[in-house]
Amino acid sequence: MITVIGSGRVGVCTAAYLAIREVDDILLVDIIENLPQGNALDIAHAASILGLNVDIRGSNDFKDMEGSDIVLVTAGFPRKPGMTREELVAKNAGIIADVAKNISTYAPNSVVILTTNPLDAMAYLMYKRLGFPREKVIGFSGVLDSGRLKYYASKKLGISTDGISAVVLGQHGENMFPVPRLSTVYGKPLTELLSKNIFQVTILSSFPIFLALKSSKAILSPVLITFLYFAFAY
Amino acid sequence: MITVIGSGRVGVCTAAYLAIREVDDILLVDIIENLPQGNALDIAHAASILGLNVDIRGSNDFKDMEGSDIVLVTAGFPRKPGMTREELVAKNAGIIADVAKNISTYAPNSVVILTTNPLDAMAYLMYKRLGFPREKVIGFSGVLDSGRLKYYASKKLGISTDGISAVVLGQHGENMFPVPRLSTVYGKPLTELLSKNIFQVTILSSFPIFLALKSSKAILSPVLITFLYFAFAY
Amino acid sequence: MITVIGSGRVGVCTAAYLAIREVDDILLVDIIENLPQGNALDIAHAASILGLNVDIRGSNDFKDMEGSDIVLVTAGFPRKPGMTREELVAKNAGIIADVAKNISTYAPNSVVILTTNPLDAMAYLMYKRLGFPREKVIGFSGVLDSGRLKYYASKKLGISTDGISAVVLGQHGENMFPVPRLSTVYGKPLTELLSKNIFQVTILSSFPIFLALKSSKAILSPVLITFLYFAFAY
Amino acid sequence: MITVIGSGRVGVCTAAYLAIREVDDILLVDIIENLPQGNALDIAHAASILGLNVDIRGSNDFKDMEGSDIVLVTAGFPRKPGMTREELVAKNAGIIADVAKNISTYAPNSVVILTTNPLDAMAYLMYKRLGFPREKVIGFSGVLDSGRLKYYASKKLGISTDGISAVVLGQHGENMFPVPRLSTVYGKPLTELLSKNIFQVTILSSFPIFLALKSSKAILSPVLITFLYFAFAY
Repeated sequence: MITVIGSGRVGVCTAAYLAIREVDDILLVDIIENLPQGNALDIAHAASILGLNVDIRGSNDFKDMEGSDIVLVTAGFPRKPGMTREELVAKNAGIIADVAKNISTYAPNSVVILTTNPLDAMAYLMYKRLGFPREKVIGFSGVLDSGRLKYYASKKLGISTDGISAVVLGQHGENMFPVPRLSTVYGKPLTELLSKNIFQVTILSSFPIFLALKSSKAILSPVLITFLYFAFAY
Repeated sequence: MITVIGSGRVGVCTAAYLAIREVDDILLVDIIENLPQGNALDIAHAASILGLNVDIRGSNDFKDMEGSDIVLVTAGFPRKPGMTREELVAKNAGIIADVAKNISTYAPNSVVILTTNPLDAMAYLMYKRLGFPREKVIGFSGVLDSGRLKYYASKKLGISTDGISAVVLGQHGENMFPVPRLSTVYGKPLTELLSKNIFQVTILSSFPIFLALKSSKAILSPVLITFLYFAFAY
Repeated sequence: MITVIGSGRVGVCTAAYLAIREVDDILLVDIIENLPQGNALDIAHAASILGLNVDIRGSNDFKDMEGSDIVLVTAGFPRKPGMTREELVAKNAGIIADVAKNISTYAPNSVVILTTNPLDAMAYLMYKRLGFPREKVIGFSGVLDSGRLKYYASKKLGISTDGISAVVLGQHGENMFPVPRLSTVYGKPLTELLSKNIFQVTILSSFPIFLALKSSKAILSPVLITFLYFAFAY
Repeated sequence: MITVIGSGRVGVCTAAYLAIREVDDILLVDIIENLPQGNALDIAHAASILGLNVDIRGSNDFKDMEGSDIVLVTAGFPRKPGMTREELVAKNAGIIADVAKNISTYAPNSVVILTTNPLDAMAYLMYKRLGFPREKVIGFSGVLDSGRLKYYASKKLGISTDGISAVVLGQHGENMFPVPRLSTVYGKPLTELLSKNIFQVTILSSFPIFLALKSSKAILSPVLITFLYFAFAY
């Protein structure tokens, strides 16, 4: 069984994806009454239409996650425009600590994967609270940032992402560290094929989405927008 | 190419599903600036991580849908608690008329599928405005309601949905018409295996979701809740 | 883990399908030296190209199937043209008895699914030898024959198989029993839409394949061919 | 539509894979009477069971491939133990020339992908005969050999193939050219992590399969077997 904690946008999309792939049975947990149940029912109805054989349930009770092999933690407040990283830490640290206690109690042998931001701080906090071996507490940030670098490189080069291998390390945010030396196209260094702007675009890449989805107020200065445009005009 | 009009919850989930299945290239259109672009970018990043080979773009310009084979219309206001069906018709009819004009202009040979509510009225309006042959303008309601009936029957019987064939006709709402005679489990009439309550539960089935997702105010009377509980205690 | 016993055409195709769907790790067992290893390596290479994350191995030692959740038994001689059903029973009964002994020893808690012909006799023999509960020893014949009936009905009606529910019971062979009363199209009896020939065609449907694949000698009389042609001219 | 020419093991597996992925409708062509029809029917029955919506047909008439977007050429004799590369060229060149004539006539705008051995010679012959632009006539060998290198590297390193990028150029056979400089694990050169034997193993990797599947006579000398064992003991 896979438990997804947090029935917001990320949690529901993750649960739906797991259902579509029929990876395993799924439990969606959230503290908001009726929310995970409603979302789970929604996915279950879709699964019925699509002919998928998965069991998906929603619950407000962490006890139901007993026996989970994998726990995906998406719970937490999103970063609002104007909010500093420190303010977000303050808001989400309590949630992570609480979730950690429940995982320790009900799924002590699980692998834990986090998407809660600020990702690196929250993953470290989860790791310290759980006391699990380090390979069992995983932040997803490098995967997302590497995926974005692959995407922009593929667009710029006009090829499929299949042959692109991209590595981004470090913080999930403006201090992320794309590694040019380890980023390759069919083994050839990306830097031989593209200008270094591609790495800058990756770092900035969450901003247009942030802009579009999270707020009606523009948070990107015109300078940045212009830079983006010239750096990556496609 | 498949065009999805409306970049809300339903539109984005639909586009993501099409991407996961690599059905075809996808265009997400919405009139809200930056929204479909941000959502498309989000799905494209996921596709890059998952190794999917699809092109997915967002646009505020209906002109970009030129050449679409299929157009999925999810645009429209959702029904808020307290809103009557008539009020929703008034709000969404204008949107559908506008979308119809754009489809006529840019994708006159496409197949059109709608999810905009009230579904039956909006599908009929789209059909009249487009003047397409009737088999090319499709409302999705029967599929969803039949899928729900299958789901509840499978839960109640403790079997997979694989062998269940369910037919629900008519309006997508409290006047839907589940057809017991045509609803079968491996060919055996559902009514021989389950009480007729199962059809009632299907009709009510959108309410718990409606309750959970759309509003913080309870819209189901305790009587209904109790009925649901006894009708379908699992 | 899923174990596939028998590394012939059916076994290899089944293992490949399980790999493509990433259902679980796979073991391919056969007594012919090098054969299951070579086939497993072949599928593993394909999995590497396709980006699938499955472990697939081949073995000549039944001991390796220890811990299997599901055992698929495809081992056995195929029916050659001119061979009677009784002769095939004689040839394959020994194989099934031997496989049953190994399953009892190494995978006593598994679910066992058979494709070895003559299917009904071999499934019954396996069931008796294993002493497992009846729901854990499954012959695949009804699924194949029902699938064929669905296929022919869908072709004849010019619709997708999605809405067709078909039930075929009894022996996998000329004495199979398609059940018209339980075979429906969106709940409507198949017999209201098609002539009863459709059931006859299903019964005969393995013959063209048998003819094409198993032998260079024609085994269908011209009368049968003609009948097939008129019964199902598509 | 995708046409698969050659209804042998490779052709049938390819057609089945395309059906499982619902990539497009499929035509299986072979000159042996009844064979592609029987194989296509077999896959169509499976598709019916699996709920796949694809049309798959078999034919002995190349004319049926009219309108194909992609043509996969698997036709040709396999290399038998003891047969030299030159003897195989002689046998398969005529087949390729004949297939090329049919593609020119019936699918002049298609993309052509070959698996017929000796791959490089046959792909070049096809290219010359068709007169298509070079990017539209593709041999599959590099993909297979690179996939094998990825597989062996992943096994040796105990990691998923996901992060491995492998490049093998040149002839599909003992003169293939794995490129260490372009073969990486998350961007890191493979040669920093593994001994160069890994490339040797890849070159030899078709032999165990060749041994297992194609003949009952051992064709690998004990020296080679021993070498393989020490080079890649897993």
